[in-house]
Amino acid sequence: MNQKILVQKFGGTSVGSPDRIRAVADICIETKEKENCGLVVIVSAMGDTTDDLISLMDQITDDPFDREVDMLLSTGEQISVALLTMALHKKGQKAISFTGWQAGIKTESIHSKARIKDIDTSRILEALKENKIVIITGFQGISEEKEITTLGRGGSDTSAVAIAAALKAERCDIYTDVDAVHTADPRIVKNTGKLKYITYNEMLELAARGAKVLHPRSVETAKSFNLPLRVRSSWEKNNVGTLIIKDTQMLEGKHGVTGVAIDLEQARLSIIGVADTPGISYKIFSKLAEKNISVDLIIQSISSHNLAEVDFTVKKSDLKKAKQILEETAKELNAKSITSDDSIAKISIVGAGMIDEAGIAAKMFETLGKNNINIQMISTGEIHISCIINESDAEKAINLIHDAFELHKLK
Amino acid sequence: MNQKILVQKFGGTSVGSPDRIRAVADICIETKEKENCGLVVIVSAMGDTTDDLISLMDQITDDPFDREVDMLLSTGEQISVALLTMALHKKGQKAISFTGWQAGIKTESIHSKARIKDIDTSRILEALKENKIVIITGFQGISEEKEITTLGRGGSDTSAVAIAAALKAERCDIYTDVDAVHTADPRIVKNTGKLKYITYNEMLELAARGAKVLHPRSVETAKSFNLPLRVRSSWEKNNVGTLIIKDTQMLEGKHGVTGVAIDLEQARLSIIGVADTPGISYKIFSKLAEKNISVDLIIQSISSHNLAEVDFTVKKSDLKKAKQILEETAKELNAKSITSDDSIAKISIVGAGMIDEAGIAAKMFETLGKNNINIQMISTGEIHISCIINESDAEKAINLIHDAFELHKLK
Repeated sequence: MNQKILVQKFGGTSVGSPDRIRAVADICIETKEKENCGLVVIVSAMGDTTDDLISLMDQITDDPFDREVDMLLSTGEQISVALLTMALHKKGQKAISFTGWQAGIKTESIHSKARIKDIDTSRILEALKENKIVIITGFQGISEEKEITTLGRGGSDTSAVAIAAALKAERCDIYTDVDAVHTADPRIVKNTGKLKYITYNEMLELAARGAKVLHPRSVETAKSFNLPLRVRSSWEKNNVGTLIIKDTQMLEGKHGVTGVAIDLEQARLSIIGVADTPGISYKIFSKLAEKNISVDLIIQSISSHNLAEVDFTVKKSDLKKAKQILEETAKELNAKSITSDDSIAKISIVGAGMIDEAGIAAKMFETLGKNNINIQMISTGEIHISCIINESDAEKAINLIHDAFELHKLK
Repeated sequence: MNQKILVQKFGGTSVGSPDRIRAVADICIETKEKENCGLVVIVSAMGDTTDDLISLMDQITDDPFDREVDMLLSTGEQISVALLTMALHKKGQKAISFTGWQAGIKTESIHSKARIKDIDTSRILEALKENKIVIITGFQGISEEKEITTLGRGGSDTSAVAIAAALKAERCDIYTDVDAVHTADPRIVKNTGKLKYITYNEMLELAARGAKVLHPRSVETAKSFNLPLRVRSSWEKNNVGTLIIKDTQMLEGKHGVTGVAIDLEQARLSIIGVADTPGISYKIFSKLAEKNISVDLIIQSISSHNLAEVDFTVKKSDLKKAKQILEETAKELNAKSITSDDSIAKISIVGAGMIDEAGIAAKMFETLGKNNINIQMISTGEIHISCIINESDAEKAINLIHDAFELHKLK
């Protein structure tokens, strides 16, 4: 099949009511006509459906089997695809709905967080050949054992990207509540820039550092298949949003700094006064890894008397468990003490062109210093710089940095 | 697998709330323990789910494709099976849920009213071997083209009976709102008898003549596989209900009259003053058949001057269409006139032993006549006698006949 294929994905609020479903049908029809393409549409469960199902479940059990949760929750998307297809039919458009298993989405044999292994696109291609818009349930697939599986957080975005990659689609458009990827969260920073382009790596760094536009998983998948991804609004007409592509595809050169993100979900742990012998980091972090606790920033420093201090950050939700583990480790290592702080914030600047541009780190530190904002920890990478500061300074800091780099001028 | 297998079916009101689902789980566990059997449970959609889905659909389209309706409505049972399975797990019972396609229920390639062609029981048997209670969605299956199909009216009862037949189950228990098959509708007749046994044929006749306990389709299927079927209450503890079996299995001899039913959904049509030549019946009824209008009772009589009168009954919902057709036929046949009456009732007595017992018809006619209830039409069969009377006499008639045959003594 040589026809151009586009994939669109609509989230839960985009299909939250019969009116919204009709509006989405209009977007689909307009796209198909304008682009003269084969169109595949991935849909999430309607606004409250998943919450309603979970509330029913909670009345039955506090400890459900993942398999049955998948059986239950996968009905949400099935309802959406049937209704969107009906709306398209009503408007005179040829269309057909598929569940995850009908669309050939094969996943690992794991419930509630399966990864997509393979997609058998034969039914999708056949329907496209019949000039039908193909509507597919997001978030779900089928395992080798013919079990209904779900993909977990960010699942519908991931479904859309994986299907687009399997179909060698020209692009995957993620329709959502925001009109673009902004240079910072518009709820915190006024006068943000709206980005026309951003690289996969920048988007991943922003997502990893607190921005919540797209789940990193879908961006990772798009990156590995070099699939152009567009984030756009399902509410604003003619909105083009932001295109997420590879570095080398950037038409207008790389941005030095593309965006600034703030992450309030971090907490800091310190173990103080440890004998600085080889292997202490291993001892500390292997035990945390065993319990599936991810560590973000790490700093190890030597104080007086050859005693080391190790500081690191974990997710706030992991703090309690991490602290217990660290207390045991502290005993083993004969450390002086441990401390924790859950009122920190991580502020990060991200940009693919950062490495080519001198003085970016200096400008960030200067901006914070000049304004009496204390930097507790620093971490740098190829396309990001992050600083841990006091939570109470977070909002002020992000606005100052956004101004300092003149991000409102970006587009 | 040599273990005894039982199949249970629970309708929508039986699983209408989390509390009800827990109660059903208790029944399942008790049955499995008491009967020491492999247990398969078929469940309908929760009380209002189907109506809620239809109301969403109605907001989108007044003319949905059957395929998409099946896609939409089949989610209802999927929600029920997941929740019931969770309730069983919560109570410490091993259990697993299956959709129609997972349970191997293969149907015709027709939407909204598919018939079951075959059941591949391998997954069910495997789960039973693992000592799990198997919970299966009623009402649905999968076609050869891997489309989700639904079975239409009476679908969940039919699923249960078909699965029981395929598994060579010892019995299929249909749990419902009534405590037994009664000798008449207890909402109309006081002091009805509750039947311990009834034959497939009697049950079919009663269903065809207005009784609404079981859909004839499920009884037909049970009859053809000689599968004992039990109707019992999902609300009353220790209720045994009514066992539906073959004539030859009746332990206590056949009842002369088993029950009396009233059908208010009939209307009468008459074509008057037709030349009595061969083929007039064919002309009248072939045209109705072409338009899928079923005719129930038919009487043809000759009046004076070799002119015939043909009277017959159709469903009230078909009356308008049938009348139009009959008007055309009347013109062709040069008939004097046609008349219609939608305020009639069909009262029927049913009993497998009727044919062996003299005077049953006479007693029915006498009872009606003595009480000034005019009989308009009569039809008799091997195990039934039906009379068309005025709708206004219906309630009085059914009570009189129930008394005359002393049906309250039956059990």
